[in-house]
Amino acid sequence: MILDKNRIAEFNGLHAASHKRKFDFLASEINNVEDVLQKLIDFQVAIPSWALGTGGTRFGRFAGAGEPGSLEQKLEDVGLLHALNQSSGAISLHIPWDIPENYAAIKAQAAQLGLQFDAVNSNTFQDQKDQELSYKFGSLQHVNKAVRKQAIEHNIEVIKHGVELGSKSLTVWLSDGSCFPGQLNFRKAFQNTLESLQEIYAALPEDWKVFVEYKAFEPNFYSMTVGDWGQSLLYATKLGPKASTLVDLGHHLPNANIEQIVSLLLMEGKLAGFHFNDSKYGDDDLTVGSIKPYQLFLIFNELVEGMDARGMNHATDLGWMIDASHNVKDPLEDLLQSVEAIMLAYAQALTVDRVKLNAAQDANDVVAAQEILQNTFRTDLRPLVAEARLRSGAALYPLQFFREQQLRAELVKERGTKTIATGL
Amino acid sequence: MILDKNRIAEFNGLHAASHKRKFDFLASEINNVEDVLQKLIDFQVAIPSWALGTGGTRFGRFAGAGEPGSLEQKLEDVGLLHALNQSSGAISLHIPWDIPENYAAIKAQAAQLGLQFDAVNSNTFQDQKDQELSYKFGSLQHVNKAVRKQAIEHNIEVIKHGVELGSKSLTVWLSDGSCFPGQLNFRKAFQNTLESLQEIYAALPEDWKVFVEYKAFEPNFYSMTVGDWGQSLLYATKLGPKASTLVDLGHHLPNANIEQIVSLLLMEGKLAGFHFNDSKYGDDDLTVGSIKPYQLFLIFNELVEGMDARGMNHATDLGWMIDASHNVKDPLEDLLQSVEAIMLAYAQALTVDRVKLNAAQDANDVVAAQEILQNTFRTDLRPLVAEARLRSGAALYPLQFFREQQLRAELVKERGTKTIATGL
Amino acid sequence: MILDKNRIAEFNGLHAASHKRKFDFLASEINNVEDVLQKLIDFQVAIPSWALGTGGTRFGRFAGAGEPGSLEQKLEDVGLLHALNQSSGAISLHIPWDIPENYAAIKAQAAQLGLQFDAVNSNTFQDQKDQELSYKFGSLQHVNKAVRKQAIEHNIEVIKHGVELGSKSLTVWLSDGSCFPGQLNFRKAFQNTLESLQEIYAALPEDWKVFVEYKAFEPNFYSMTVGDWGQSLLYATKLGPKASTLVDLGHHLPNANIEQIVSLLLMEGKLAGFHFNDSKYGDDDLTVGSIKPYQLFLIFNELVEGMDARGMNHATDLGWMIDASHNVKDPLEDLLQSVEAIMLAYAQALTVDRVKLNAAQDANDVVAAQEILQNTFRTDLRPLVAEARLRSGAALYPLQFFREQQLRAELVKERGTKTIATGL
Amino acid sequence: MILDKNRIAEFNGLHAASHKRKFDFLASEINNVEDVLQKLIDFQVAIPSWALGTGGTRFGRFAGAGEPGSLEQKLEDVGLLHALNQSSGAISLHIPWDIPENYAAIKAQAAQLGLQFDAVNSNTFQDQKDQELSYKFGSLQHVNKAVRKQAIEHNIEVIKHGVELGSKSLTVWLSDGSCFPGQLNFRKAFQNTLESLQEIYAALPEDWKVFVEYKAFEPNFYSMTVGDWGQSLLYATKLGPKASTLVDLGHHLPNANIEQIVSLLLMEGKLAGFHFNDSKYGDDDLTVGSIKPYQLFLIFNELVEGMDARGMNHATDLGWMIDASHNVKDPLEDLLQSVEAIMLAYAQALTVDRVKLNAAQDANDVVAAQEILQNTFRTDLRPLVAEARLRSGAALYPLQFFREQQLRAELVKERGTKTIATGL
Repeated sequence: MILDKNRIAEFNGLHAASHKRKFDFLASEINNVEDVLQKLIDFQVAIPSWALGTGGTRFGRFAGAGEPGSLEQKLEDVGLLHALNQSSGAISLHIPWDIPENYAAIKAQAAQLGLQFDAVNSNTFQDQKDQELSYKFGSLQHVNKAVRKQAIEHNIEVIKHGVELGSKSLTVWLSDGSCFPGQLNFRKAFQNTLESLQEIYAALPEDWKVFVEYKAFEPNFYSMTVGDWGQSLLYATKLGPKASTLVDLGHHLPNANIEQIVSLLLMEGKLAGFHFNDSKYGDDDLTVGSIKPYQLFLIFNELVEGMDARGMNHATDLGWMIDASHNVKDPLEDLLQSVEAIMLAYAQALTVDRVKLNAAQDANDVVAAQEILQNTFRTDLRPLVAEARLRSGAALYPLQFFREQQLRAELVKERGTKTIATGL
Repeated sequence: MILDKNRIAEFNGLHAASHKRKFDFLASEINNVEDVLQKLIDFQVAIPSWALGTGGTRFGRFAGAGEPGSLEQKLEDVGLLHALNQSSGAISLHIPWDIPENYAAIKAQAAQLGLQFDAVNSNTFQDQKDQELSYKFGSLQHVNKAVRKQAIEHNIEVIKHGVELGSKSLTVWLSDGSCFPGQLNFRKAFQNTLESLQEIYAALPEDWKVFVEYKAFEPNFYSMTVGDWGQSLLYATKLGPKASTLVDLGHHLPNANIEQIVSLLLMEGKLAGFHFNDSKYGDDDLTVGSIKPYQLFLIFNELVEGMDARGMNHATDLGWMIDASHNVKDPLEDLLQSVEAIMLAYAQALTVDRVKLNAAQDANDVVAAQEILQNTFRTDLRPLVAEARLRSGAALYPLQFFREQQLRAELVKERGTKTIATGL
Repeated sequence: MILDKNRIAEFNGLHAASHKRKFDFLASEINNVEDVLQKLIDFQVAIPSWALGTGGTRFGRFAGAGEPGSLEQKLEDVGLLHALNQSSGAISLHIPWDIPENYAAIKAQAAQLGLQFDAVNSNTFQDQKDQELSYKFGSLQHVNKAVRKQAIEHNIEVIKHGVELGSKSLTVWLSDGSCFPGQLNFRKAFQNTLESLQEIYAALPEDWKVFVEYKAFEPNFYSMTVGDWGQSLLYATKLGPKASTLVDLGHHLPNANIEQIVSLLLMEGKLAGFHFNDSKYGDDDLTVGSIKPYQLFLIFNELVEGMDARGMNHATDLGWMIDASHNVKDPLEDLLQSVEAIMLAYAQALTVDRVKLNAAQDANDVVAAQEILQNTFRTDLRPLVAEARLRSGAALYPLQFFREQQLRAELVKERGTKTIATGL
Repeated sequence: MILDKNRIAEFNGLHAASHKRKFDFLASEINNVEDVLQKLIDFQVAIPSWALGTGGTRFGRFAGAGEPGSLEQKLEDVGLLHALNQSSGAISLHIPWDIPENYAAIKAQAAQLGLQFDAVNSNTFQDQKDQELSYKFGSLQHVNKAVRKQAIEHNIEVIKHGVELGSKSLTVWLSDGSCFPGQLNFRKAFQNTLESLQEIYAALPEDWKVFVEYKAFEPNFYSMTVGDWGQSLLYATKLGPKASTLVDLGHHLPNANIEQIVSLLLMEGKLAGFHFNDSKYGDDDLTVGSIKPYQLFLIFNELVEGMDARGMNHATDLGWMIDASHNVKDPLEDLLQSVEAIMLAYAQALTVDRVKLNAAQDANDVVAAQEILQNTFRTDLRPLVAEARLRSGAALYPLQFFREQQLRAELVKERGTKTIATGL
């Protein structure tokens, strides 16, 4: 399904007056509105190819209808999202779930939909059919050199797929670790992993990067071999300038101060980017901003402050991706909610009065510092985000549009009720 | 495979002298050794039918070889465990994964293996093929009365299976809950669940009990409708005397004091029993005692103290079951380790000097109270547990026996390498 | 210091036009604005007498200047807050830190300032000078009957003080518990505590209530004898209709779903009220809404829904109090921020479209339910809260007023820099 | 009080036969008993000067009797502990609580008691009387250069005290951080702290080290400027070879895998040493081994493995200290329990069969690896630790001796009931 642009224009027309009233009211209170709008327009969040189907837990999975049954349909879905919000202009592929059969055709389709290929993702946390050696006891960390070699080669193959598609980075999330005390020698596991990563690093094209993702627990329940930002940073530092640390919001121990981690990784020049989602307990992979929206804002606050301090380009110098699991929602609706939450948090961070905040910090005026952040957060910036969409040709209210126009029903009609997307 | 008793006798003969030396040394330090031994002999831990195959996470599952491919083979496996340790004389069935085709035959097999049928377990956390209505949004809590009715009827059907087999209790674990704020009206979800449970309760035979299990999170990641012991106790109290609260060690928020919960539920006469496992992060379902053995001892310490205070029979008045997931181990070896850890903790609890402990507590002598518990825990009671096994015809060292005799290899020979046990 | 009303009127005059513009814009989007405004005007949050001085931790305390040095000055401070926001019309006294020397005089002062006396609070977590027996090992739980008796009598004495002042409830927060395994018999500690509470309950005047507060940990670090809502509810149920459960937002294990607890306690008719604060790690006692404002809204969402379902009066049928510790802020500024956060969350909850939310819940429309709550939360309701203040004679922007008018400087002038308020 | 050695000899004589029987039984099962015994004899745990009095929480402190009222009496107390167990041969001083008035006299007293001076500890988490600038908003991180300078100079002064006493290391624990979002610029706080530490580092004598301690939370409740091992390692790496990371067992987020952190810090050559204690919730500062003894063993298991891999001397190459708070126990009894738990865990780690463990790890034999660790942990090594004490002239059972001989009563007689030791 390719969305006819006229449908969006018509929808926006109906809401134009009401939107304008709200936007004008808001705009009068914000400095540099035009600058903020341009940044919002430029900001793009990649959609992972595995987030387009219904997710599940170890206890079960309740599939929806009209899920994409092929890589082409996944691109279509992301294209649809992007048409709706003009903020989802990239797709991140997971290998081997989404290996293109014909690179040229896929690239052409992506170009037509206005999509870039974001980081490619390797998978050594599952055994694939016909795979020679098992990852039951890890991959890059494995005590057996042959298993490590197989996992290294898989990663190098993933890079090759990425090169064909025009990706510029490889994300390595390792489930490697242990379930019981004694199972692993932590130091040897670290050393094996480092050496494996070094071989992968050596295979990176000149202009590529490798993102080392960390996770505190699951699927291993005693130790993870890339378990926290400290470990990931150790790997990234030992690897070299092309390596950096990827933050997934759900991959921390309870109560972790993620925004501080973000600030320090930026300080070190070692922040790769984000996997956005939200959570209450563990790696719950809930819709971005659905549980702790203030934390999301605080993270963006550090991102904007830290990137500006280093003269970085918000839109291009870090990797932005959603990584959620839509167990009880329509995946496309969920993704629209996630992107909206991200854009709002980014807009909030862009409108923080940094001069006043710095002054409050320099004066240890804790009350004022808190007021500045809270007042920004309490300001309703939805019209600002909507305006950015309007200007870039997207729908003023993407979710409302999706529902009113019954786009899922159209997809079901095309695809049927039984297709199941590859993924978790 | 039915284990020839002579193999065990022969094995025990080889280790008899060395064991006797250790046991005699230990026995001289323990009061009422004979009484403790008899209690250890009487104590039986049920094995769930779903724990005999390799478990997995949402990220994948790495199956082993020689897994039981039928209910009959599952009984065989439990029979084998029981032959090895004489402490696993019961099996707990999960419906619909393990519906007997022929009750009489299954009962005869169980009797031959010396096994009882423990609590039967319903499943409304997954959709079964050909199921009319989906549990995607809950079962007993569902806003739609028809779904609730379907789930109630499933539970009643499970009871009927149990009656045929001679079970005396139904365990209800509900995954019902919500993933996002706003999804549920908590009060209505509670009321719906209560009414559904009341209908199930009404269908219980005279001499049956229903166990209401609670869980803090997963597979729902915002709220669980039976989320903690307080909620479960509310249900159980409103239901009546046949209802009580089941404790699964992995179903708590971080840092919970489980032993205190156990003590209070016993005080209220509302403790149903246990699902034993261990965990570091969430419902990790690790081998019992593998992470926090001291906590396991403290829980048994409350159990023995509280049951004795109520004049309860340790072996029969509560339900004891393992509920773990063997992702990286041979399931039978893992279960042998779990039973061993339970027996050790029980033995420790039986040998606490309660007179001295009470005196220390009455004197607020915190140091002495701690010493009493620690000294018990630090005492090596393995020979005591081994002696109980020896006297009941089990192997002195079941795991060593299992490995030396290469029992898994025998099972693989019988069953092949490709069988996959039903379960998670 | 008694604030001249003209100063507020003058301040409001300066901001009237700008406020009117914002309020009018907002009002056009809200149903029943007048009803909501009246509820905001009626809603009062009690200020605890111990929150008017700088707090500290076990590591130290950094006092501020101009702290109230007497009960009279504490009333003055609350009177000042109330004059500024007209939402702080009650004070909650802590005995023995704030025993009035002359009831009539104190009552007259309170009346003049427009203040009520909220719940009185007992203290058996510290030893007072000249106290006969120590609470080192607990108070109402103590193994020694004489200590329990002393603690019971203290609580009864607190009730007497409350009666003199016109309070109608006693809040019992017990630090009772244990620091080490073995120290306590949990069951006996519960029974002792229950019996002690029963004696206190028997001493309650006809129209009084007793609030049983729970806390997961600190100052005891192994067990707390009123450790969670389940335990508190057990006590409250056994005590009778005058007893109910008090929720302090910081008294939970990590990741607890507090809003669900609130809903269930309301369902049971056993919610006493709140101690508001915020936290990231434990009982951090931070400014309300400073860390998890969305959670605060979700809690108020349950409060409004649940109270309306029972036909309760929002303003009078539950106890509302702040309980925070201002370690790095001016206590009065911090309290103004806390009250503002509470009023905002209450306003948000009042403006949720319940008809639509119920419809979404009944349809399992998770996306819509989330949208409804998020859209409410994202709406900027500050002008609504300001309008309620304007209509009740308070300052449009209390914190701004406090700072611009340099009220703390006035207090320092009156009181000096060395006064230290009683409290933690 | 100086303990007469004959009292110990007499006590040991009474228990010699019973001990010998147990030790001989145990020794027959252990390889290299003599080597293990020598390591146990050599291992010394420093006692902090602030742990000799009763601790407290922000809610209160219940002092005991006979606490040391002077630095001399604190040394006496540590001397007494050391006489009892010959494993506490060092004291760690806190400045300014324990500034010697006469270095020579104090050194002479220490020498007489067989005590060394371990790391000296600075204090910038409290304001001292007559201190010019306040640490309310941090010390080494402070936005005001003058405050940083004051804190740096304090640390340099602490080094000077240490030099006079023969210490060789400075432990810097910073409470620096923030309580509210916005209060701090994380990056600037890090940079300020780093520059401050660099000045302190520059002042270190040639043969000194500086230990950078981290803590997740408390007394700051939003962020800590040295908040986890990753941050501490960043500082230590940027500082240079004399700087390393100090691990306090209670300073982590819930569920952290501390033993893995230990292993990786050792791998990096950046582990400074330990502050031992135990905890269930936060920095509870409970007796070592009282809550999670298996975790303590796992930590020592990594220590022994990792130090041996680097050829390090267990006794001298890392700093070993207790840092607990004895709120409800006699501090000396508590310290005896803590040292006993440490020695046991060390003994367990020394007796792990590493050849078999390595083989199990290399074979991914998870079951065997777990068995090896559990069997070691379940073995009762108390006679081994007692034998080490016997050989070094200490009491076989120090706590029993302390109690039977009523040593606290002797101290009370000497010091009275009202002395209060400096500390928290």
